[in-house]
Amino acid sequence: MIKKFIFGTPFETEAITGGGEIPAVRLEENPGGIPYFSAAVKEDGVTLTRLMDEGERIYGLGENIRGINKRGWIYESDCTDDPIHTEGRRELYAAHNFFLTEGRERFGVFVDAPQKVTFDLGYGDRDQMKVTVSAGGFALYLLEGDSMRQIVREFRRAIGRSYIPPKWAFGYGQSRWGYECEADIREVVRRHREEGVPLDSVYLDIDYMERYKDFTVDQEKFPDFPGFVREMRQQKIHLVPIIDAGVKIEEGYPVYEKGVENGYFCKKEDGREFVCGVWPGRVHLPDVLNEKARAWFGQNYKILLDQGIDGFWNDMNEPALFYGEDYLEEVFEKLADYGRQELDIKSFFGMKNLVLGVANRKEDYQSFYHESRDGRVRHDQVHNLYGYHMTRAAGEAFDSIKPDQRILLFSRASYVGMHRYGGVWTGDNSSWWSHLLMNLQMMAGLNMCGFLYTGADLGGFGADATEDLLLRWLELGIFTPLMRNHSAKGTRRQEFYQFGHPEDFRNILGLRYGFLPYLYSEFVKAAMTDDMMFLPLSFVYPEDEAAAEVEDQMMVGESMMIAPVYRQNARGRYVYLPEEMKLYRFRSLTSADQELLGAGHHYVKAELSEVLIFVRPDHIVPMSEGGCSVEDIDASRLNLLHFVRTEGTYELYDDDGYRKDVDLESGLTVITVKADGTVSVSGAGRPECRLR
Amino acid sequence: MIKKFIFGTPFETEAITGGGEIPAVRLEENPGGIPYFSAAVKEDGVTLTRLMDEGERIYGLGENIRGINKRGWIYESDCTDDPIHTEGRRELYAAHNFFLTEGRERFGVFVDAPQKVTFDLGYGDRDQMKVTVSAGGFALYLLEGDSMRQIVREFRRAIGRSYIPPKWAFGYGQSRWGYECEADIREVVRRHREEGVPLDSVYLDIDYMERYKDFTVDQEKFPDFPGFVREMRQQKIHLVPIIDAGVKIEEGYPVYEKGVENGYFCKKEDGREFVCGVWPGRVHLPDVLNEKARAWFGQNYKILLDQGIDGFWNDMNEPALFYGEDYLEEVFEKLADYGRQELDIKSFFGMKNLVLGVANRKEDYQSFYHESRDGRVRHDQVHNLYGYHMTRAAGEAFDSIKPDQRILLFSRASYVGMHRYGGVWTGDNSSWWSHLLMNLQMMAGLNMCGFLYTGADLGGFGADATEDLLLRWLELGIFTPLMRNHSAKGTRRQEFYQFGHPEDFRNILGLRYGFLPYLYSEFVKAAMTDDMMFLPLSFVYPEDEAAAEVEDQMMVGESMMIAPVYRQNARGRYVYLPEEMKLYRFRSLTSADQELLGAGHHYVKAELSEVLIFVRPDHIVPMSEGGCSVEDIDASRLNLLHFVRTEGTYELYDDDGYRKDVDLESGLTVITVKADGTVSVSGAGRPECRLR
Repeated sequence: MIKKFIFGTPFETEAITGGGEIPAVRLEENPGGIPYFSAAVKEDGVTLTRLMDEGERIYGLGENIRGINKRGWIYESDCTDDPIHTEGRRELYAAHNFFLTEGRERFGVFVDAPQKVTFDLGYGDRDQMKVTVSAGGFALYLLEGDSMRQIVREFRRAIGRSYIPPKWAFGYGQSRWGYECEADIREVVRRHREEGVPLDSVYLDIDYMERYKDFTVDQEKFPDFPGFVREMRQQKIHLVPIIDAGVKIEEGYPVYEKGVENGYFCKKEDGREFVCGVWPGRVHLPDVLNEKARAWFGQNYKILLDQGIDGFWNDMNEPALFYGEDYLEEVFEKLADYGRQELDIKSFFGMKNLVLGVANRKEDYQSFYHESRDGRVRHDQVHNLYGYHMTRAAGEAFDSIKPDQRILLFSRASYVGMHRYGGVWTGDNSSWWSHLLMNLQMMAGLNMCGFLYTGADLGGFGADATEDLLLRWLELGIFTPLMRNHSAKGTRRQEFYQFGHPEDFRNILGLRYGFLPYLYSEFVKAAMTDDMMFLPLSFVYPEDEAAAEVEDQMMVGESMMIAPVYRQNARGRYVYLPEEMKLYRFRSLTSADQELLGAGHHYVKAELSEVLIFVRPDHIVPMSEGGCSVEDIDASRLNLLHFVRTEGTYELYDDDGYRKDVDLESGLTVITVKADGTVSVSGAGRPECRLR
Repeated sequence: MIKKFIFGTPFETEAITGGGEIPAVRLEENPGGIPYFSAAVKEDGVTLTRLMDEGERIYGLGENIRGINKRGWIYESDCTDDPIHTEGRRELYAAHNFFLTEGRERFGVFVDAPQKVTFDLGYGDRDQMKVTVSAGGFALYLLEGDSMRQIVREFRRAIGRSYIPPKWAFGYGQSRWGYECEADIREVVRRHREEGVPLDSVYLDIDYMERYKDFTVDQEKFPDFPGFVREMRQQKIHLVPIIDAGVKIEEGYPVYEKGVENGYFCKKEDGREFVCGVWPGRVHLPDVLNEKARAWFGQNYKILLDQGIDGFWNDMNEPALFYGEDYLEEVFEKLADYGRQELDIKSFFGMKNLVLGVANRKEDYQSFYHESRDGRVRHDQVHNLYGYHMTRAAGEAFDSIKPDQRILLFSRASYVGMHRYGGVWTGDNSSWWSHLLMNLQMMAGLNMCGFLYTGADLGGFGADATEDLLLRWLELGIFTPLMRNHSAKGTRRQEFYQFGHPEDFRNILGLRYGFLPYLYSEFVKAAMTDDMMFLPLSFVYPEDEAAAEVEDQMMVGESMMIAPVYRQNARGRYVYLPEEMKLYRFRSLTSADQELLGAGHHYVKAELSEVLIFVRPDHIVPMSEGGCSVEDIDASRLNLLHFVRTEGTYELYDDDGYRKDVDLESGLTVITVKADGTVSVSGAGRPECRLR
C-alpha cells in the first residue's frame, strides 16, 4: 500500500514511474495527516518527527556509511565528492531517500526531493527519528506491507525495473587511475592471461582522454583506438572508458562548441555559462536536466560506441567542483591581503580554510541554473538529480543508438530513478578493512533502493592496500555484481601481480567464474521481479531476533549466505546461522570442504585464501567449471552445491548476455535435486549437472 | 637475556636506564652478527630483514593504529600531529620502538633511535619483516625469554619503573576544548554533582591561558585563579591545565624573555631562534634536550603548582608546527605568483598543496638545532625525543618542587623513557566506533612499552559523538587508568548531560568507582613489578591457539577479562573464554547478573548500559561501594566478585594516593576466599569483605 503526500510544488524527479496515478494528500491542508510522524513546517524546510521503539531497526538509504541497521546516525542526501569516508561522514555521492523501519510498526518512507534531505535516525536523540527536507516542494511516499521484503518490492515496483548490464560486466575488471596508454593496458591483460587469472575488462580512467576532454581519445597514447579496442576484444577484454561531467572550455573542441552554440550548458543568473574547475581545468556543466541538452550530451557517447566501446562509467557528476571560477578570483584577492598583513593564528587558519573551502562550495551550487521542463531552476534545488540525469542521458542515448544491445553503464552520483539507466559504484573508498565491511553492509541498502548492479572499488581506491586486504576483499567481491579492482594514482599499485602469491588470486577469482551462472541468474531474477539480490538475514528470517543483530553476513540470492572475513590476521570468524546450513569452505574451484552446521552461533575457520559459502536447506547453487573470461564459461556443465533434506529446486536463468528485452520465463532451467541424490533438469537449458 | 648492538654513534636517549652495563656489539664490525635478521647498511639508513613464519604474531609498538597483533602493516616512528587516525596512517604522536614476535622463534626488539624508524611487518611482502632505521647512529636491543610476558618484564626492567600518578587521577575527568572560564567549569561540576555522576577532575584546554601563553592564566576569565582552584578542591575537583610546547613571542612575557636571554630556545643554523606558528601565533620552541633549558622550562610549572594545581597535560610536543615562519613567507610569494597567472588544474592543485603543506614540514624540522649534552644536533635527528624531554622537564621539576607528592602528568608525544615521568593520552582520536576498539587494542601495546597511565579521549575528540557511542566507550573507559571524556571545539558537546539518559551514565561511571580499589591495586603492582596491567589473552594463555586470535577482549590485571561492545546497535557480542569463567553482567554498582560460562566461544548479551566482567577461576575482584569522587571511596568495605573453585587469593595494594615513594609490601592486604565461602583478610588493611 503506497500513500502519497505532497508539500509545495515538488520538482518532478521521475523517480516514481507511475507517480501520477497515486492520489496525493496535500501536507499544507492536512499537516497532521501523515501517519507515524508529526510534521513541522518552517521557513527553511519541513521536519517530520517520530518516537522510535527501543528495538526498532531501520534499513535502506542506499549508498551510505555505517551498518545495515542505519539507526543511531544522521545521514544527509547531498551528493558530495569527498573521498575520505570515515564514520563521521553524513553524505556520500548519492541521494537514496528510501528507508524502512520495523519496531512495533513497520513501514517504508520515500522522500522524493532533489534538494538536501536529512535523516536523523536516533542521532540527536537516541529515541527519535527526524526527517528534514530543506526548503522547496517535495513528495513523500509511505509504504506498508506484510514484511520488509514486501515493502521493498512495492517500492521497487513503483520506481521501475532496475538496469541489467551485459553478462560480461559480471566478469572481473581491473582498473587504476594511472593507466596511460596501450602499453599499460596490454601489460595488465598479459599478466592476467599469463598467470591464468580471469579478466573481462580493463577500465580507462581520465588519462586516456586528450586533455581530459569527454569523448576524445589521446591520439599519442592510443594511435589507433578502434584497432586497440578490437585487439582487446580478441583477447576477450572489454575496455570501459570514464566520462566526466564537465566539458572542457577549448576553442575547436566540438563538444564544447556545440554546447555553447545551443545553450546546453548551465548558466549563471546573468545568462553567461557557469565556469568551474575540474580535471580538464576550466569547464562548463552540461544542463542534463534540460531534455534537449540531455539528448545531445547522450548522443556524444556514440563517438566511442562507434569505436567499439560497449561500456562506460560516469564520474564527477555530483557534480564535483574543485572550484568555481568567480569565487577563485575572490580567493586570490583575499590571499594577497593575507600576504600583506602580519598573520596571527586566526588569520593563518582563515587563510588555510579559504583555500580548503573552494571545493564543492554551497554558494557555487547556488549560482547556476537548469532549464528544466518546468522552467528555470536553481541548481541547489535539484542538486541531487545531476548524476542521475547525466547517466540517464547516456542510457536514453543507448536505447536509440543500440536498441538491441545492453551497454555497461554505471555512475558515481545517483538518485533513485537512475537505477533504471545504470548501476553505481560506491565511489572513492579507501584501502581500509572497515571499508571491506562497509562494502558488504551497503549492498543491501543499495538493493532496497533499486541499485542491483553495484560494487565497491575492491582493495580500496585511496590509501595503500596490503595483499591480505585485497584477498579478503576479493573474497567478498566475487559475489558483488560489479567486481572491479580500482585504485588511485599515488597509492600502492594493487593488481594481483604486485603481490607475492598469484595462486591465491587465481583461486579466489576463479570462484567468481564458478558462481557466475548463479549470480547472473539471481541478478536478473531480482531485477525482473523487483526483488533484492543481497538481503539482510532479518529480511529472510523475520522472526529470528538474533538474525536481526547480524551486521556482517548477507544472504546472496535465494540459496546462499556469505560471511566474509574482514579483519586483518583473522583466520576465522563468528557466524550466526538462523537455521541448519551446509558450509562449503572453498580453497579454489576444485578444492572445498563440506560441513553441516546447526542453527545458532559458530566460530568458523577461514584461512586467508578460503571462501565460506553457506547453503540453505533444500536449496541448490549451480556452479560452472570456471573460465578466464565470462564468454569462456561452459553453461552446459554445472556442479551443484546442494543441501537437500527433502527436495531442492533451483530456477536458473540464463541468456545470451546481450539481449535488451529480457524474457525471464523463456530463460529458465529448472534443476531439482531429491534427497536420494537424483537430479532432474527441465526448461530452457539441458545442462549436465553433477552433485558436489 | 638482553643483547645490545650499536651502529654509528647513537644519540643517548636515556630510554634504557642501565644501558651502559650491557656489552654491545658494533654492527659495522659484525654486520652478520644480529641474530634473527640480516642487516643491510645503506647511505640513508640500516635495514634489518627477516622472513616470518606463517602464523607468526607481532605485539607492541605502543601507541599505534591497527590490532593487538601488529602484523600486516607498516608503522613509522615519527611523532606527528595529524588528528585523522584512519587505517591508512603509519604514524601517530609517539615513537614506541619496542615490539615482540612469536612464531617458531620468540624475541623482542627495541630500536633505540630518536630519528625516524620504519617497521614494515608484512606490509611490503606479507611474509617479510623489515625494520629500517633512517640515517644516523642507533642502538638495538634483542630480548629473549621463556614467554612474551617475561620478555616484556625484562624490557621494562631495562627502561625503569613506570610513572605512578596520584590516586585521584584514576577518577573520571571531564574535558573539552572550549571551556573558557570559571562559569563554564562550575557548570560542568554542578551538573555532575546534581545528577550524582562521579567526577574528580576538569581539564583546562588552551583557552584558560592568556593569549595561549604557557604558565599564564587569563585574568578576565579567572580573576582569582588560586581561589577558584580552592573552590574546586572543596568540591573534590582537581583542575588540570594544559601546557603547550611553544612559547609565545611577546615582549614583556617573562617565559619568553628568560628563554631568549639564556639562549634556551631552539636555534637555526645562523644562530637565530627558530620561529614557527602554533596556537599563540609566533612561538619559539624550548630546547628541552639542553639540560639547563629543560631545568628552566620545568621550573615554570611551579607558577601553577603554587596556585594549587596538582596535575598537567603536555600538548603540541611532537613538536607540532602549524607553519615555519621562513617557509610561510615563501608560500605567500608563490601564492602571489599563482594569482598572477591563469590557473590550469595542475597549478590549482599546486596552489592547494602549497597551503596544505605548510604544517609539520620535514624541511622545517631539518632547520633548527638542539644543544644537547653531546653537542649541537639537528632536530630531525632527535625529533622523537621532544615530547619525552618536555615531559621530563616537568617530571624532574616536580621531583625538586614537590619531592613527596605525586603530580598528575601526561603527554601527547612520547618516546620510551618518558614512561618514567608521566603517562600519555592517545591523542586526537575521533568519535568513531572503530576508535573505541582501537582504544582497547592500544592498551596492551602501550603497557608493553612502559606506558601504564594511559587512555583515550573517551567519546572521541574529533567528529560528533552519539549517546550510544559515548556509553559504550565509557564501558571500556571505566577500566583504563586515565579516564577522560574529551572533545574538540566545533564538534557536538559530549558531557553526559548533553544526552537524554543521565541514569545510564551514573550507572556506568559508578562502576568505575566500584572497581577503583582493584584498578589502583593492579596498576601500582604492574608499575612496581615491571608488569602489564592490560594483557592480550595470548600473554596469559600462551598455549591457546584460539586466544591468540582474539583482538577485542583484554585481560585487566590478574583476576578479570573484559569484552566491551564496540558496535552501534549491538545488544551483545561474541566472547572467547580460554577457560571457564564467571560472567558478571553489571547494570549498575548494585545490580548485576551472574553466570558461569565454560571455556570456548559464546554469544553474550549486553544491553546498551550493561558492562560485562569475566572473573577467572580462583580469582577475586574486590569492589568498593562507589562514591562521587575518589576520596569518597570507602576502602574499609569491599564487595568481592569471586569465582572460587578451590581457593582464591587476591593481594590488594592501597596507599594514601599521594606518597611518591611507593612501598608495595607495606600496602598489601591479602584477601582469601575458600570454596565454602569463608573469607579471610590479613596484611595492611582490615576491610570488611562481603561476597558478591
